[in-house]
Amino acid sequence: MTSGTAFTIACAQVDPVIGDVEGNTELTTAAVREAAAAGASLVVLPECASAGWAFRDYAESLACAQPLDGPVVRAWQAVAAETGAWVCGGINELRDGRVHNSAVLVSPRGVESVYRKVHLWNSEKLVFDRGDTFPVVETPFGRVGMIICYDAWFPESTRSLALQGADLVLAPSDWVPNPHQQPGPSLANLMTMANAHSNQVYVAACSRVGTERGQRFIGDSVVVGHDGWVIAGPAPDVPAILTARIDPIGSRQARREDPFNRPLGDREPTAYVHEAPPTATATPPFDPTRA
Amino acid sequence: MTSGTAFTIACAQVDPVIGDVEGNTELTTAAVREAAAAGASLVVLPECASAGWAFRDYAESLACAQPLDGPVVRAWQAVAAETGAWVCGGINELRDGRVHNSAVLVSPRGVESVYRKVHLWNSEKLVFDRGDTFPVVETPFGRVGMIICYDAWFPESTRSLALQGADLVLAPSDWVPNPHQQPGPSLANLMTMANAHSNQVYVAACSRVGTERGQRFIGDSVVVGHDGWVIAGPAPDVPAILTARIDPIGSRQARREDPFNRPLGDREPTAYVHEAPPTATATPPFDPTRA
Repeated sequence: MTSGTAFTIACAQVDPVIGDVEGNTELTTAAVREAAAAGASLVVLPECASAGWAFRDYAESLACAQPLDGPVVRAWQAVAAETGAWVCGGINELRDGRVHNSAVLVSPRGVESVYRKVHLWNSEKLVFDRGDTFPVVETPFGRVGMIICYDAWFPESTRSLALQGADLVLAPSDWVPNPHQQPGPSLANLMTMANAHSNQVYVAACSRVGTERGQRFIGDSVVVGHDGWVIAGPAPDVPAILTARIDPIGSRQARREDPFNRPLGDREPTAYVHEAPPTATATPPFDPTRA
Repeated sequence: MTSGTAFTIACAQVDPVIGDVEGNTELTTAAVREAAAAGASLVVLPECASAGWAFRDYAESLACAQPLDGPVVRAWQAVAAETGAWVCGGINELRDGRVHNSAVLVSPRGVESVYRKVHLWNSEKLVFDRGDTFPVVETPFGRVGMIICYDAWFPESTRSLALQGADLVLAPSDWVPNPHQQPGPSLANLMTMANAHSNQVYVAACSRVGTERGQRFIGDSVVVGHDGWVIAGPAPDVPAILTARIDPIGSRQARREDPFNRPLGDREPTAYVHEAPPTATATPPFDPTRA
């Protein structure tokens, strides 16, 4: 961690208010300012930090969405310019008349990358449109990809980023309690650790706290190292700024040469099955309109 | 667990002796007998249970291997016939003059399925040949697939089985200590839980204990439910019979209809990257001859 490429990353675990776009913009910019004051060069906010999550229907979701050149991204760019810290935040994104559950990476010069949630969970299918790609972008912090919440349940998400060279995965999330949680790491933390370890990437997962229309969120934000172990967190179930010093670029050589664990170099792609064969019993997608 | 399809599975966590094929055959059949007496209908043994793991070179590995119609499989078939319990065990398999690190599923009528380890870890590349497929077989216990140890570090392994309809994954393993282990679940348990959860399959992972030529093994055998949570174990670092009552067939409908987690139904295959693009920085496979 003495490398010139090491930096401090922060998860700003906040409690956005559904529909209060103006208030959430103030809340998140204040949190970024606080994290930057604590030394962070890159600040991760939760999923749907601009407008909330538990929408009643598509119309309400649409009414709360804003485009990438709208006020929340402008505010994040302004606070980035003011503090020097980059911002990765979940945004309820309006795009071509549709709403995406997106994550945006914003530097002082503007939007560096945008990711639209691929795996929509449960009733999210009713209020968001899904994305269809996992982009990786070159930054001063290393090659960065983003996933959002439920994406972490699908190992293909982080693998898709790692295969494109990602060093660091940012994961804005709105983690909810697991109905069968045992003592020990939350299921969300466990999936995050497995994703980091099996891809040798750093993961900074920022979840939210509070309760929205009956849905409780658990906090539990973590920064996980490329060996899968927790560097910072899990954060308690209250608003919090979690910081960790990480070195995605400086660790490249060590990761490449690690004899113990070679999650990309030891893959054997010709043995893998990626689609259910016609003879397998398929699990149908959940149709929330029939639940 | 009152379903007529529920049964008791056991992990027989033993301490095989390298090169002592006859002694290991006695050790493993005795362990199967003990597990069956404890009520098990299916008993999982560790990786390389027939002849050990830490071979000096390929010649030694070859000298200790035996074919699928050799004495250890005959002994496992005999104890299966005697007790009624099926056996899944790791075997140092001789096949066409080559050695595979294999897992075999044996019923009273003989070999039901064989899996040859796809992901060879570290110096295993020097003493074993790798397999190239993840088979799934229909059994009275449900559709069963097998993985071995390091395979669990690659999410593609369990995913390949789940996409072919597996209900239950058997994982003979020789788990070693992780150099950065934190308090909480071992990394091996963590990967096993993530694999179970993200594929909604039961996983019975039987590791070994003892030390072989300086390499310590950690035990930690577990049976994990299709929700990712531990049903039995982790077993302590001594020889042990771990049992759990599971219902892979009886849980099919509940798994299929779970609105909370749909790891197969909610996949979005068109978004996935399965190969490193030419522009990505590839991690080379570890070459133990140059370590």
